[in-house]
Amino acid sequence: MKKIKKEKSVGIVKTEYYTFAYPPNELILESGEKLGPITLAYETYGRLNKDKSNAILILHALSGDAHAAGYHSLNDRKPGWWDIMIGPQKAFDTNKYFIICSNVIGGCKGSTGPNSINPKTGKPYGLSFPVITIKDMVNAQKHLIDYLGIKRLLSLAGGSMGGMQVLQWTVSYPDMCYSAIPIATAPYLSAQAIAFNEVGRQAILADPNWKNGNYYNTNKIPSKGLAIARMIGHITYLSEESMHKKFGRRLQDKDKYSYKFLTEFQVESYLHHQGDSFVKRFDANSYLYITKAMDYFDISAGYKSLVDAFKNVKAKFLVISFSSDWLFPPSQSKEIANALRKNLKDVSYVEIKSSYGHDAFLLESKQLTILIKKFLNRISKEVMGKNA
Amino acid sequence: MKKIKKEKSVGIVKTEYYTFAYPPNELILESGEKLGPITLAYETYGRLNKDKSNAILILHALSGDAHAAGYHSLNDRKPGWWDIMIGPQKAFDTNKYFIICSNVIGGCKGSTGPNSINPKTGKPYGLSFPVITIKDMVNAQKHLIDYLGIKRLLSLAGGSMGGMQVLQWTVSYPDMCYSAIPIATAPYLSAQAIAFNEVGRQAILADPNWKNGNYYNTNKIPSKGLAIARMIGHITYLSEESMHKKFGRRLQDKDKYSYKFLTEFQVESYLHHQGDSFVKRFDANSYLYITKAMDYFDISAGYKSLVDAFKNVKAKFLVISFSSDWLFPPSQSKEIANALRKNLKDVSYVEIKSSYGHDAFLLESKQLTILIKKFLNRISKEVMGKNA
Repeated sequence: MKKIKKEKSVGIVKTEYYTFAYPPNELILESGEKLGPITLAYETYGRLNKDKSNAILILHALSGDAHAAGYHSLNDRKPGWWDIMIGPQKAFDTNKYFIICSNVIGGCKGSTGPNSINPKTGKPYGLSFPVITIKDMVNAQKHLIDYLGIKRLLSLAGGSMGGMQVLQWTVSYPDMCYSAIPIATAPYLSAQAIAFNEVGRQAILADPNWKNGNYYNTNKIPSKGLAIARMIGHITYLSEESMHKKFGRRLQDKDKYSYKFLTEFQVESYLHHQGDSFVKRFDANSYLYITKAMDYFDISAGYKSLVDAFKNVKAKFLVISFSSDWLFPPSQSKEIANALRKNLKDVSYVEIKSSYGHDAFLLESKQLTILIKKFLNRISKEVMGKNA
Repeated sequence: MKKIKKEKSVGIVKTEYYTFAYPPNELILESGEKLGPITLAYETYGRLNKDKSNAILILHALSGDAHAAGYHSLNDRKPGWWDIMIGPQKAFDTNKYFIICSNVIGGCKGSTGPNSINPKTGKPYGLSFPVITIKDMVNAQKHLIDYLGIKRLLSLAGGSMGGMQVLQWTVSYPDMCYSAIPIATAPYLSAQAIAFNEVGRQAILADPNWKNGNYYNTNKIPSKGLAIARMIGHITYLSEESMHKKFGRRLQDKDKYSYKFLTEFQVESYLHHQGDSFVKRFDANSYLYITKAMDYFDISAGYKSLVDAFKNVKAKFLVISFSSDWLFPPSQSKEIANALRKNLKDVSYVEIKSSYGHDAFLLESKQLTILIKKFLNRISKEVMGKNA
């Protein structure tokens, strides 16, 4: 524990589970399908204050989970996925705020998803799991926030798909969101991003071990297809500049070309490693469902315009983008900020100069911390007064 | 023929074949391996003048071939791949110039490649085909130019991998290149481009029909893997802007989400079509070999610097890039132009404003034509005098 304390960590944490939507009260999905019972895996850090006014909901990205901060055991090598941002005195200061993070539905880290047992059949859902959307993910989280007795979240924050959920929360439940921090995200998924998602899905579908999604009871998983999907994704998370700096044309463990179909360049070795390690921790069907949910995301769908979609939001916004992010480029964050401004909402927009590409939301902790601390200080003073 | 004439076409053309490097005079490859005999498929348009001073060599990109202009028969639906640029009164004016285009070695369109019969075994080479480089492709083309009796090319032009060959020609055979037009290319393949190539190759290798490259005598080809590789490539050939304009988030043959794992968006349907049609016309092993050749390309390898690599070139250059090309960005063309300028070479550099991305070199014929016509007029006057 000594080392953990030194890092200003939340320490050892435990994932909790909340189950709801038992039949006949299933969650009605956007598709019209019903899903229930639903379990959400979640973690909390810090303490909920007496009037339950200090809660911040953290929303994770495509491959994230409920484990956003701290360690599950003393032997854990790595902390939660946003540990650099969540902890005592960090951006999301657990001395002041009560932080919640839940795994999305459709995921594979404890929340109900395609690898869960379908109670009607006693077998894993596989492709019989209904297609879910960002709105469905948010509607499920709403049940968890109700269960925790929280009437209004002090803030919500998340990058990438996490930012989509932030936006959806502010539109679906305006009275429950005092403020919102969408990071490296977009009001809708672009054609280019849909295209990359689709190629990743095709790679999974082409893997003979995928077996139309029914691979859970076989001893093989569609690891090659999933690794390819992850490699494609990973290229889009980095910038050309960061790849050039990190790898350039350096060779892997050699100083001359081999003129063979072997791993030749460091960038290839890096991608293989990313693919292989992802396969060990993520479910291929979840990858299909979650990328599909991202494809469907368009916060203005059903409204006259993006401006119209934000008409009733009440949250005060801090919108953040990164200069070298080409998957969710700054122009898309500006669209969000501009549409909010046209509604005369309270919005700050910051483009952080960074060479890290889309991954910057996981890496640029220093600049993010300065911005978010300042924003949350202001927000918490408004809500909690001088005691904040 | 009426329709063909109207379009200022070179008309009906025929692919020719030249075979050389018969043992024991095989071509020595960069790897040290020997390859021979080698057949090059090539086409020519226009007439070689008396002193053989009006020849222009066109170099094709990854999936191109020798058929750059005209039609193979009256029933052909599509002309050659650069027909908008090659023909009477076009940029490469066949009334004035003798145009040559040959399929690269390693290819699958008539030149010796992995799908050719290995004379030593009587079976297709498959993966026993040696790994080839851009320099090897150029060294093979040199034999063809010698065979045609041409001592010096008036110009060489090509986009993408074609531009790499242009650069290699000017460095390897400075006395044979009077001028050069590298388009949408780079002095070396970037880490990001290597990464995309590698994921495409992994998709082919993961296809169970690939069978370690020995699929020619089976009745199955690695079509899924090759289609995925092509889809990845295709995304990188377009710009985010052009995809947004062309597809946006429009749905395919429906007006509501299906909430199923079907083709939902037009961009998905487009990619599937690109993948499927590519599989019908291209060999998966050739895709492996040619992308590998691109990975290895670094014109400065073996020199102290890029400036040093261009020290002995004699060609006059017109370097062209496209503003929205993110695979071979303008910055890389500028590197070429700057390195040439530091050597006090005769070089013009133009960045064409275009939203088409890397594919612009196949589409922006109007702007390309103006630039190239003007450049070739000047060049041909220098070489051929007033008769040009």
